[in-house]
Amino acid sequence: MHDLKWSTGEKKIAQAAFDAAQDRERRSIRLEIEGMLQRAENHRVIWDIHDYLNEKRRELDQKYDYRYSQLIMVFGILLRQGWLSENDLAGLSAEKLEAIRRISSVR
Amino acid sequence: MHDLKWSTGEKKIAQAAFDAAQDRERRSIRLEIEGMLQRAENHRVIWDIHDYLNEKRRELDQKYDYRYSQLIMVFGILLRQGWLSENDLAGLSAEKLEAIRRISSVR
Repeated sequence: MHDLKWSTGEKKIAQAAFDAAQDRERRSIRLEIEGMLQRAENHRVIWDIHDYLNEKRRELDQKYDYRYSQLIMVFGILLRQGWLSENDLAGLSAEKLEAIRRISSVR
Repeated sequence: MHDLKWSTGEKKIAQAAFDAAQDRERRSIRLEIEGMLQRAENHRVIWDIHDYLNEKRRELDQKYDYRYSQLIMVFGILLRQGWLSENDLAGLSAEKLEAIRRISSVR
């Protein structure tokens, strides 16, 4: 996967898909925090939120690696986790899409 | 301040004051986070919240030190910052109250 060439058009699609997935994850984290605040009577909930954000920030920092050498792997994981759909990736070469699908189907 | 003796009654008052101040701070942090969420359109607000909680957790961990050798200092700071009122401390010996007030008035 390291030797795949990315055209200018593909780079735009990749960037948009990457950004969209990351924004969906941030939205989901935000909703989770809002739910925690709504449900909690005890103000200690702020430290539960802090622990949760610690974990999520580590996870996202590690996952969202925009190096072209990593991007097929990143997209495969995001597809498997549901943060991306095939629609988001439409326009990438058949070779890339196949590699992404292969990774996304690994269990 | 290290050689002050704490009676059983004073320990109860101290514990209640300490807990009340901490709960007020947690409430204030919670309100701040809720406000940040309400104001923000961009989901990146979650990382602003994370930074804010990092800072507050460090600050509170350092400040809320319930060792009797530290408690006069802790209460002085909390009184100065407004997390405690003199009412919360009523029942402590005159000597302790005076020491606490002295610290609270340091600028």
